Amino acid sequence: MRNDLLLKAARGEETSRVPVWVMRQAGRILPGYRKVRASVKDFTELVKTPELACEVTLEPVNVLGVDAAIIFSDILVIPEAMGLPYQMLESKGPHFEKTIKTAKDIDALRRGTTENWDYVVNALKLTKRELGNKLPLLGFAGSPWTIFAYMTEGSGSKTFSVAKRMIFSEPKMAHSLLEKITETTIAYLKDQVNAGADLVQIFDSWGGILGYDTYNEFSLQYIARIVDELSKMVPVTAFPKGAYFASEQLAKLNCRVIGLDWAINPAEARKTFRNKTLQGNMDPCMLYSDTNSIKKATQAMIKAFGTQNYIANLGHGVYPDTPVDHVKCFIDTVKEYGANNS
Amino acid sequence: MRNDLLLKAARGEETSRVPVWVMRQAGRILPGYRKVRASVKDFTELVKTPELACEVTLEPVNVLGVDAAIIFSDILVIPEAMGLPYQMLESKGPHFEKTIKTAKDIDALRRGTTENWDYVVNALKLTKRELGNKLPLLGFAGSPWTIFAYMTEGSGSKTFSVAKRMIFSEPKMAHSLLEKITETTIAYLKDQVNAGADLVQIFDSWGGILGYDTYNEFSLQYIARIVDELSKMVPVTAFPKGAYFASEQLAKLNCRVIGLDWAINPAEARKTFRNKTLQGNMDPCMLYSDTNSIKKATQAMIKAFGTQNYIANLGHGVYPDTPVDHVKCFIDTVKEYGANNS
Repeated sequence: MRNDLLLKAARGEETSRVPVWVMRQAGRILPGYRKVRASVKDFTELVKTPELACEVTLEPVNVLGVDAAIIFSDILVIPEAMGLPYQMLESKGPHFEKTIKTAKDIDALRRGTTENWDYVVNALKLTKRELGNKLPLLGFAGSPWTIFAYMTEGSGSKTFSVAKRMIFSEPKMAHSLLEKITETTIAYLKDQVNAGADLVQIFDSWGGILGYDTYNEFSLQYIARIVDELSKMVPVTAFPKGAYFASEQLAKLNCRVIGLDWAINPAEARKTFRNKTLQGNMDPCMLYSDTNSIKKATQAMIKAFGTQNYIANLGHGVYPDTPVDHVKCFIDTVKEYGANNS
Repeated sequence: MRNDLLLKAARGEETSRVPVWVMRQAGRILPGYRKVRASVKDFTELVKTPELACEVTLEPVNVLGVDAAIIFSDILVIPEAMGLPYQMLESKGPHFEKTIKTAKDIDALRRGTTENWDYVVNALKLTKRELGNKLPLLGFAGSPWTIFAYMTEGSGSKTFSVAKRMIFSEPKMAHSLLEKITETTIAYLKDQVNAGADLVQIFDSWGGILGYDTYNEFSLQYIARIVDELSKMVPVTAFPKGAYFASEQLAKLNCRVIGLDWAINPAEARKTFRNKTLQGNMDPCMLYSDTNSIKKATQAMIKAFGTQNYIANLGHGVYPDTPVDHVKCFIDTVKEYGANNS
């Protein structure tokens, strides 16, 4: 591979400079994406059309100059593969017509297989072919808890109190759903690797609404199972958004890379996650600032993490109204860092 | 005072049993509240009518048997007092017609004074008279950052990216607004104490969306100023929801009590906050479980915190659809704990 900086960093090997990519780079900030998005009737059509998914996956590689492509898709491919379809409502986010309420609802879900996500497999194969040996291709999935949260709540939420009601009032039922999601997710990620993904990231977007005593039981143990299976094939990144309170447990995960959000102090994270590669963690709102401030903050971030065992990124997905020049400033600052500072 | 358990615990004095109250107890869970709420045209009318605010403040004392009353009000009294009125939209939450965008908007805001919150002062005086020397009365306000977030964003939000855009793109302007809110909040809380509040709690509801490098600058330093002023008069509780990442900085606050959300491990919190009284921290969703499980979880919580320098509470406001019997089970379990376990 011509540029394998990110994979080297993920494996803990020495790199000549810090690799960089941006969560949600294959999305709403780029004009090419918005053009493609406007050409289809809805978000899910874009996710399900491999040629278009490939096109928007490659756009940030060309426009932003990132060190990896991440397949354009959505974590909600999994509920749909299990028989629970979703819609992405404009400016409202995901919406499920039906939600999971009973043991019968869980029994009615299937364990998804390749035919249920063939469009993702085809998008990965196509993108891998287009990328050639230029850059690594990243795959991803939601954590079982995060998928569970959407399947029971039916939409995004500030509290996810419907999802949490189930773990407290029907813990056995909750575990049977989490089991089913976990098995499906392992099969899904294996298919992604076989289709060309060089690394997979697990987004635990809603782990942070659990507590010190519930996180391990309802989220981490299922992430650990996915990590254990997938780590046999490729490096795995776990991104436990907002779950700082579980850092010590997270440090025991068998994955190579931990993604950090902006709440976390890099120096502390280095102490907690001693043998891991770290990824993150600038506040995406920092990119609303001026380019001079962005440059300084980016340099300070790299200095705090150090240049090795490190993948520069934001601490969460880039917001759609971020100026593209500001994202470029972030990326260029990372790429130039080695030349001037180390 | 006949029952001063909560104040004793807050001051670090020995108590014969653990005191208990529940965040949002003067609200949506109780049938009496819903009846009063239905009798007025909107939420703000209830906040602004001292007789009604007093009535719903006293209801949980009688129905639930808590160890303190907390004045029924809203943290958004402050923006309104400064000249920025809000509405509370049914099932949507707070909404501001106008938001703060420019330095001119900030200049146009007044520093609120007693006449701008006389209805809260009157509600406190009335409630204090009704309570007699039975129980302590608690006052409260939002943290300056939390108030800033609503004034700039105009409503609740998952990301508060509008509010955060201002701290990153216009930090000086942000500080001038935070200054103005802080001064107003200090005057407001002093008035609450003079009207009868025996303790005041500062709700930093949105501190958790800041980061390790921004929390001190944009939230904590302003909380510290309020704490320093008010601690001269009464014990102060700081409740930094979701700001676990800032625990070490928070431990330096000059307040007597730290409120904890459910993310935080009690044993760890005891190590971090050595000389403080701790308050919290059961996940409010635990109250969706059965009473047997609630009882066990409550006992485990007290065991983890210990019975001294401790005020039992939830880790966040009780959810409106929680069965009253389950809240009572939580409270009764705390009150019976001493008799059986210590």
